[in-house]
Amino acid sequence: MNSIYSQVVNPNQEFSIVGGLRSHGERIRILILGAFGFIGTNILKFIDDYLSGQYEVVVFDRTNKHPKGVKINSISKVYTGDITSTLDIENIFKNEAEFDVVLHLVTTTVPAASNDYRYDIETNLISTIQLLEMCKKYKAHKIIYLSSGGAIYGDMADAHSENQVAKPISSYGITKLAVENYMYLYKRLFDLDYLIVRLSNPYGPYHYSTKQGVINIAIQKALRGEKLSIWGDGTGCKDYIYIEDFCRILFILISKNYKNEIVNIGSGSVYSLNDIVETIHKQLPSFGWEYTCCHQNDVVDFTLDISKLLSIIGDVRFVALAEGISKTLAWHKDNKFVL
Amino acid sequence: MNSIYSQVVNPNQEFSIVGGLRSHGERIRILILGAFGFIGTNILKFIDDYLSGQYEVVVFDRTNKHPKGVKINSISKVYTGDITSTLDIENIFKNEAEFDVVLHLVTTTVPAASNDYRYDIETNLISTIQLLEMCKKYKAHKIIYLSSGGAIYGDMADAHSENQVAKPISSYGITKLAVENYMYLYKRLFDLDYLIVRLSNPYGPYHYSTKQGVINIAIQKALRGEKLSIWGDGTGCKDYIYIEDFCRILFILISKNYKNEIVNIGSGSVYSLNDIVETIHKQLPSFGWEYTCCHQNDVVDFTLDISKLLSIIGDVRFVALAEGISKTLAWHKDNKFVL
Repeated sequence: MNSIYSQVVNPNQEFSIVGGLRSHGERIRILILGAFGFIGTNILKFIDDYLSGQYEVVVFDRTNKHPKGVKINSISKVYTGDITSTLDIENIFKNEAEFDVVLHLVTTTVPAASNDYRYDIETNLISTIQLLEMCKKYKAHKIIYLSSGGAIYGDMADAHSENQVAKPISSYGITKLAVENYMYLYKRLFDLDYLIVRLSNPYGPYHYSTKQGVINIAIQKALRGEKLSIWGDGTGCKDYIYIEDFCRILFILISKNYKNEIVNIGSGSVYSLNDIVETIHKQLPSFGWEYTCCHQNDVVDFTLDISKLLSIIGDVRFVALAEGISKTLAWHKDNKFVL
Repeated sequence: MNSIYSQVVNPNQEFSIVGGLRSHGERIRILILGAFGFIGTNILKFIDDYLSGQYEVVVFDRTNKHPKGVKINSISKVYTGDITSTLDIENIFKNEAEFDVVLHLVTTTVPAASNDYRYDIETNLISTIQLLEMCKKYKAHKIIYLSSGGAIYGDMADAHSENQVAKPISSYGITKLAVENYMYLYKRLFDLDYLIVRLSNPYGPYHYSTKQGVINIAIQKALRGEKLSIWGDGTGCKDYIYIEDFCRILFILISKNYKNEIVNIGSGSVYSLNDIVETIHKQLPSFGWEYTCCHQNDVVDFTLDISKLLSIIGDVRFVALAEGISKTLAWHKDNKFVL
């Protein structure tokens, strides 16, 4: 990736949105795989809102329209298929000019569900190696891989930094770590640039899952007038990041052409489940919860060290929990999305 | 593994050979997978020579006899099959009583040859996970995995210690690291004990390969009266360990029931290719070599930090390079093994 990015700063934002125009005003060509999931949808909406005209966006997902009917303006082309099919993936690269950025957001399994290790390996690891092969063959400039702080680091008590030995505690985490290692190898052997982002726990709008994301689930319960069951005493803390903060950071990293590194992305702030339910309760007083099972803290705190990130992007203001929950509640109400 | 080992010390050895009798004089049941390779053969001969009567040895390999006709007394049963076949592996466990130790020595690929990543993953990673499943299902007490210092650590310049972040520089190394991570996971989820040994570069008798092991290849060339070609200037250094030292250390670790750890095994001494050829030349003056290609050091030194190992087994005397080469030459001459 030799093009020089110009930096487009929007002064209205609380921390700068830096766009990604290539030199000579040419738009950055980005392929987003898994574009219609929670994170992908937010990235697309972020481009719509702040970066339209700066990115040429090609997307790949299982369906040719957003499954929840979310309207997105910035997409120039949608490819559909199965991430494990080399034919489906090669079809995109064959039909498109070189991509500046390939953003890989697809995961086929979730940490808790991964007890079919072979399936994990086939669909997450081998499919990503096939994608790396396509990036190499069709000369993509850089691949950005969405890794997972929680799944990679395991449950050691201290704040996790990128230069720490990873001890994944799920098959999902092991395959994510192996993917990271193949990215390093493809850079070394074939000079394919990469960026690995180890994300903490994002929350916010467009989270349609009824099973993943504790803030999302709590808000859905609150809006349905149901009680949330908390397993344990709710004191275990984790790093949560408002999804728009993540999108903003991602595009800063892209615009800086930051590459061939692993970087943690989190807010640097940890919250307990008790913090979360009390925050929702303040904004929606009818919301209630109950503690079930053994009333003790069996969740090890998960703290992400974001000093490397801050050294790259400078000091930023993150959306605080109350503000993020307020925005998420507003989105749910506006969209009448209560499952 | 709750049995208490008695320690059987042979005072004639330069550092203690500690055997592995279980309590009440019962023999330790060991399954060795990949038993007829270079390392496996040496382990079997070591049991023959020093530990017979203390171990009950079941082996698995592709052939039902040693392919080079090496006579081994300690084997109680040979199973044959394909490591990737769950049926073949389950067949062993079904027919045998619980194993105290499952020693996994099989690798289907070598670092340099691993450019078929899918094959690497299928045969090295997935087959080992299937083996872990069998160990869990049939209640093996401990699995010992032969990992690789060189392949796991990559080529950073400092001495590699077990608590360092691994940066494999081959697909082979990535799959070995993923296997290590699955061992950690099986301990965590299913309480299956493991021991991971990250071995440096072993050399010595019973090394029949014509492609692997630079000392082995140099000795073969020397005995055939051929010149060795050295690529570069021969100054890059690596840790080499005489294979009998490795066997001795392995059985000390087994007898101590050392487990649920990763440990480097090397001699702690590094030698260059120039050291090696000059040492062989002193013992076999007709031996010659030539430098080809670019005369510069393009091999990064590979030094293994063995302080963790020494803290477990105490100070030991390792066989020096000249002595190890002398013993290896003697074995070649005795066995008239010159390919």
